[in-house]
Amino acid sequence: MDITFFLNRHLDTPLYQQLYGLLKKNMQDGHIQKGVKLPSKRLLAAQLSISQTTVERTYEQLAAEGYIVSKPRSGWFADYDETEFIHSEMANTPSSKPGTKEKENWIDFHYGNVDSVHFPFSAWRKSMVSSLDQYGQQLYRPGHILGELELRMLIAENLYQSRGVRCRPEQVILGAGNPILLQMLCQMFGRDISIGYEDPGFPRSRDIFEINSMKVLPIPVDGEGICMEGIRKENPFLVYVTPSHQFPLGTVMTIDRRRQLLKWAAENQSFIIEDDYDGEYRYSGQPIPSLQGLDQHDRVIYMGTFSKSLLPSMRVSYMVLPLSLLEKGREITSLYKQTVSCHIQLTLMEFITKGEWQKHINRMRKLYQRKREILLEALQIEMGEQVKIRGGDTGLHILLDVNSRFNEKELIERAKEQGVKIYPASPFYAKQPPTTTVFIGFAGVSEADIKLGIKKLKAAWFN
Amino acid sequence: MDITFFLNRHLDTPLYQQLYGLLKKNMQDGHIQKGVKLPSKRLLAAQLSISQTTVERTYEQLAAEGYIVSKPRSGWFADYDETEFIHSEMANTPSSKPGTKEKENWIDFHYGNVDSVHFPFSAWRKSMVSSLDQYGQQLYRPGHILGELELRMLIAENLYQSRGVRCRPEQVILGAGNPILLQMLCQMFGRDISIGYEDPGFPRSRDIFEINSMKVLPIPVDGEGICMEGIRKENPFLVYVTPSHQFPLGTVMTIDRRRQLLKWAAENQSFIIEDDYDGEYRYSGQPIPSLQGLDQHDRVIYMGTFSKSLLPSMRVSYMVLPLSLLEKGREITSLYKQTVSCHIQLTLMEFITKGEWQKHINRMRKLYQRKREILLEALQIEMGEQVKIRGGDTGLHILLDVNSRFNEKELIERAKEQGVKIYPASPFYAKQPPTTTVFIGFAGVSEADIKLGIKKLKAAWFN
Repeated sequence: MDITFFLNRHLDTPLYQQLYGLLKKNMQDGHIQKGVKLPSKRLLAAQLSISQTTVERTYEQLAAEGYIVSKPRSGWFADYDETEFIHSEMANTPSSKPGTKEKENWIDFHYGNVDSVHFPFSAWRKSMVSSLDQYGQQLYRPGHILGELELRMLIAENLYQSRGVRCRPEQVILGAGNPILLQMLCQMFGRDISIGYEDPGFPRSRDIFEINSMKVLPIPVDGEGICMEGIRKENPFLVYVTPSHQFPLGTVMTIDRRRQLLKWAAENQSFIIEDDYDGEYRYSGQPIPSLQGLDQHDRVIYMGTFSKSLLPSMRVSYMVLPLSLLEKGREITSLYKQTVSCHIQLTLMEFITKGEWQKHINRMRKLYQRKREILLEALQIEMGEQVKIRGGDTGLHILLDVNSRFNEKELIERAKEQGVKIYPASPFYAKQPPTTTVFIGFAGVSEADIKLGIKKLKAAWFN
Repeated sequence: MDITFFLNRHLDTPLYQQLYGLLKKNMQDGHIQKGVKLPSKRLLAAQLSISQTTVERTYEQLAAEGYIVSKPRSGWFADYDETEFIHSEMANTPSSKPGTKEKENWIDFHYGNVDSVHFPFSAWRKSMVSSLDQYGQQLYRPGHILGELELRMLIAENLYQSRGVRCRPEQVILGAGNPILLQMLCQMFGRDISIGYEDPGFPRSRDIFEINSMKVLPIPVDGEGICMEGIRKENPFLVYVTPSHQFPLGTVMTIDRRRQLLKWAAENQSFIIEDDYDGEYRYSGQPIPSLQGLDQHDRVIYMGTFSKSLLPSMRVSYMVLPLSLLEKGREITSLYKQTVSCHIQLTLMEFITKGEWQKHINRMRKLYQRKREILLEALQIEMGEQVKIRGGDTGLHILLDVNSRFNEKELIERAKEQGVKIYPASPFYAKQPPTTTVFIGFAGVSEADIKLGIKKLKAAWFN
């Protein structure tokens, strides 16, 4: 095999890293196929006019990551798992170097993605630079354990206006992602606590509860939200719910069910964790106030995130604690200190204060509403009565019941053959998983690709 | 009381926030003393030509945070805890708004601080902007679970060169601070595991182990490092050590002790957590290789941080896992996703690649060496034989045994009366805490203030 890469000696990136990236990309793109013998170190070094050490380092790196393998007395061979490049993206772990543009023909309906075109980078950059100029001195110190006070004030203010959440800034605790905050909650309550959990529900949260030795009790969800019958039967100490947009079913918890749940919590001295993971993206109708806003008895822990309303990689989430948990909350939080970088907090403060955040949300809400309409329309046109859509009124994903001759696994595999990634619904279920339902997130897909993707799904399933 | 603040209507900061900040600052600075009656809402609104609602909101905020109190039929009174403003700084929780410059007359020898003048903000800003321009698209996706590959490659490379750590990038896991990484380690090992712990040692790590139901076994430290006798007696499954610069004693673990510890770990199939929290700041002599670098049997978990070598508020730490723990490590890490904001990672990548990080470390090493010399010299001149210095050869803090008529608490209180903050050594000890030893961190204090601070300590203790 002849390898004729161009390595640029004038870049800051070391040669071995450049070579590593190029070889990996060539495997990814299928130019170096599995089983192919790579040139010897000596030969490749000579071909590229670089040292053998550089080649050796590159090969070792690739071997360490499982892309190539050395066979005794034969040399190096490409030996990667072909599904790895796909798999790594499904698991949200892009293994590519930043800067290397991947050849991306996939239409990926992953629900963790956001629109990848419209983030106002220039406003963000301005906030970043201006916060550094104004508050740079602040960065020399460890930040406030709960998060910068002014950011917590902005969050409290915004939550009141947009979600009816009533809280003081000292009830707000920032954290680098919801899982970290859930971890802290688990440590506040201690282990062997029982927790009622929506079934179906969000597996990552369940995993956090389970690793903290909580007793997770799956409780069914009906058209109004989590079932009170199940709650009353199990009488858990905690209940974890997603009332704004049930994950994954997409239902909105009715006001009646909210009141029943709150009444039960007050009577039992239980706490409710309200995970409002995409509450910003409601498209129509009057918003129903958050459980936290309706609560009169200090029973609700409200959780929110900037992952959907900003960027998932920014890692800024927050929770609002009931007053009775403040002291314990501070104690546990101070173990970890504040996990969100202070500069990110200051930037966000500036971004919100300048009105950029609200502007961005408003823009994205329109954009996502339009994407959703296109998705629903395309499904209607292409598949009509052969599919049933669930949870299409709000949020950034739907569930699709597919009436074809294929099961869940086949639906996904046939879609993959067409270059479309969709996701199974069954992992969200503790009991009685559906067998022909798939999970479709549309936020990260362009309008054109939504239409094309649905056409391809039709070809995959109904031809 | 007449309040004649200037509120600026042209700022983005809402009026109530401006008023909040001004009132709080006036309490902090002692201009509004405890017990003083505040003007009524109506009066203050009239004085400042703002609405009563604005004043109300401000008062409620201050009341919520415990600075003022409303007495029925009498109005609002300043009612803050005078020690709060001091206390909040000691606990590293500056409660001030960014941008408001505090009147800071304290000389604060807190060990968590870093030099607060010499951070290369303009180079950092450049890296920040340039990484955004180059890799902005990367931010749309959730980042790599372990941290961006290229940053992990840079860390692996740097650790090899500077600390003799031998690892592949896939062994490196980033996290938003050491405590989060320790938390993940605890979850990797499960509860009821026994862990040998240096006594004295770092209390925060001990707290993390304890909250995870590990069995913490204090093991004495002698002049060479953790005592093998204690290790052999307890035979723990894990050992947590700070070999480069024992915390808090400041001793460097000898090469002999390192070999003994590694041999023991290999024989017992135990793991060693090597916390190299300020390994960059060694001033003289040949560096002793890290335990990880000496280890032949895959027994060492190496931990490092950018808190000391960059800024504590940046929240970037990392650990290097042994190969046998990689799979479990990935599994636990994926629960939390990556906690370091992707943009901070990209900025750091750029900052390291451009050589700015190394330049900064070299500059800081010289600066800290000079601060340390000034500290030791001032102690010698001012206190001579009346004090004994421990751990002054490396790192950013010392322990000071004070031969005066005062105990630890009195030493600290008398220092505080002189406007100098020093810290107790006893909390680091599980058994036999010293009674007349204080903890002095010098990184965050200017050269002039080090000299002045030691003069003041002399006045506090020996006059």
